[in-house]
Amino acid sequence: MIKVIIIGSGNVAQHLINAFQTTQNSGHPIELVQVYARNKETLLHLVAPNKITTNYSDLQEAHLYILAVSDDALPEVSNALPFSNRLVAHTSGSAPITVLNDRNKRAVFYPLQTFTKNKAITFKTIPICLETENSADFETVKQIASLLSDQAIAINSQQRKALHVAAVFANNFTNHLYQLANAICQEHQVPFGILEPLIQETAQKIQHITPQQAQTGPAKRKDATTIEAHLEFLTDQNQQNIYTLLTQSIQKNGKKL
Amino acid sequence: MIKVIIIGSGNVAQHLINAFQTTQNSGHPIELVQVYARNKETLLHLVAPNKITTNYSDLQEAHLYILAVSDDALPEVSNALPFSNRLVAHTSGSAPITVLNDRNKRAVFYPLQTFTKNKAITFKTIPICLETENSADFETVKQIASLLSDQAIAINSQQRKALHVAAVFANNFTNHLYQLANAICQEHQVPFGILEPLIQETAQKIQHITPQQAQTGPAKRKDATTIEAHLEFLTDQNQQNIYTLLTQSIQKNGKKL
Ligand SMILES: NC(=O)c1ccc[n+]([C@@H]2O[C@H](COP(=O)([O-])OP(=O)(O)OC[C@H]3O[C@@H](n4cnc5c(N)ncnc54)[C@H](OP(=O)(O)O)[C@@H]3O)[C@@H](O)[C@H]2O)c1
Ligand SMILES: NC(=O)c1ccc[n+]([C@@H]2O[C@H](COP(=O)([O-])OP(=O)(O)OC[C@H]3O[C@@H](n4cnc5c(N)ncnc54)[C@H](OP(=O)(O)O)[C@@H]3O)[C@@H](O)[C@H]2O)c1
Repeated sequence: MIKVIIIGSGNVAQHLINAFQTTQNSGHPIELVQVYARNKETLLHLVAPNKITTNYSDLQEAHLYILAVSDDALPEVSNALPFSNRLVAHTSGSAPITVLNDRNKRAVFYPLQTFTKNKAITFKTIPICLETENSADFETVKQIASLLSDQAIAINSQQRKALHVAAVFANNFTNHLYQLANAICQEHQVPFGILEPLIQETAQKIQHITPQQAQTGPAKRKDATTIEAHLEFLTDQNQQNIYTLLTQSIQKNGKKL
Repeated sequence: MIKVIIIGSGNVAQHLINAFQTTQNSGHPIELVQVYARNKETLLHLVAPNKITTNYSDLQEAHLYILAVSDDALPEVSNALPFSNRLVAHTSGSAPITVLNDRNKRAVFYPLQTFTKNKAITFKTIPICLETENSADFETVKQIASLLSDQAIAINSQQRKALHVAAVFANNFTNHLYQLANAICQEHQVPFGILEPLIQETAQKIQHITPQQAQTGPAKRKDATTIEAHLEFLTDQNQQNIYTLLTQSIQKNGKKL
């Protein structure tokens, strides 16, 4: 039986707790033995009270401790752990493995997905990016991640950094474009919902063809008349700036301007 | 029996032909009586040869003629039609209804989706944006569109223009962000496919919450350390410019800078 302990009670911690408990309940050789939270109340809807501790000194023995706390808190929390030479992983896309105190054997257990509390998600398809300081520990994290997901992959710190930056473009910035589209719709009294099938299809297309092949629109066609009409239609300077920069970037095929 | 004729043989024409034939074959009171193409060959895999004409003067009588040709060709093609006072629609998101020759009764039949040849798509969920010059004709286009889609909606020219600009943000620009993410992955030897579940989840989230509620990431958190690290990590000036502008826009919540 592999024993896991999760430290934290936020978005990622709660989704991991859920995923581990589901895996455990379906008979896999894994046990979420304990969870640490600063406030016990935040986890009472998910975990039996006797399994939640608010005290680092009560932490039991486990094969892996997963620190799903804010990036900024990683040094403090890993310093506070009252043991050494055990396997400790963080779940951050951007923090290096070395942010963790080196009294313990360090690892990264980064689920590449956007988590929101109360929004269920299937862990099976989420890539879990794994790194260990000592190669001897890799099999342990790989085995644990493989119980949760079909995509447990070795990703070093440099690759993880690239993935994190790429994810900012593909997730944070994309979502912001949805917000701008929403604002344009609101300004002209059309329901944003009309764009939903288009948004889903845009995301699904790249499962079959590359984004380069999927590119369409006035920028790609170098349709100067439509581009000019759009820029005139936009009443917001910020939207105009973004329209211009992304249009130029499409026309340069994403290369340096 | 409602009779429809499609002019054109490109992406939209072929998807419309497919949708009309499927609807007709499932017993609905609609008939695709004829199709016009400059080159008959482009449609032979879809339509019986005797139903394809390459000659405007051979066009039969129909309740609706749908001009699914390039925006630029709309004046020329609508001028070439050898009849008057019939109902003629274009399928463009950006062309005004007045681009069509006024010898005929003008309409717009704009399916708000991104079409690629050879990529099947369910028409049922695609919003079809409808406009007619004369209100007496609206019921006809509405009835026809409703046979293809569950979302046949009245959208005037100003609203359609807003939708088209919004679609550039939500589709063309979003796809370009995928391309930039892909480039960053390639540069650092990580497969772009790892980002796929994230991209799908980002698109799906806004079916449940607004883009504003869904926004996460270093820009939203005003996490200056991570933003700086990302900008340093990017080796491409164009990517840096886009990162900076979109980060600022998220921090101003999409408002004027
Ligand atoms: N959200 C995502 O989509 C996502 C995806 C992949 C990876 N990650 C990474 O996962 C980690 C957690 O992110 P999250 O989204 O779950 O964050 P979150 O929802 O904001 O939760 C942060 C957690 O850290 C705890 N915490 C903060 N400071 C602490 C301290 N000094 N001592 C002890 N605990 C502390 C918080 O406790 P309180 O509740 O008591 O404040 C909370 O449980 C981060 O490294 C993040 O980069 C996030
Ligand atoms: N693609 C989309 O995602 C999409 C979505 C919604 C609306 N629309 C609109 O739908 C319309 C058609 O777009 P599309 O994507 O189907 O374009 P497309 O694939 O490029 O096809 C254009 C069609 O127009 C024909 N054509 C061009 N010039 C012509 C002329 N002078 N005389 C007769 N035929 C001519 C072409 O004939 P040849 O094959 O002989 O060149 C071809 O059949 C446009 O108004 C577009 O804005 C497109």
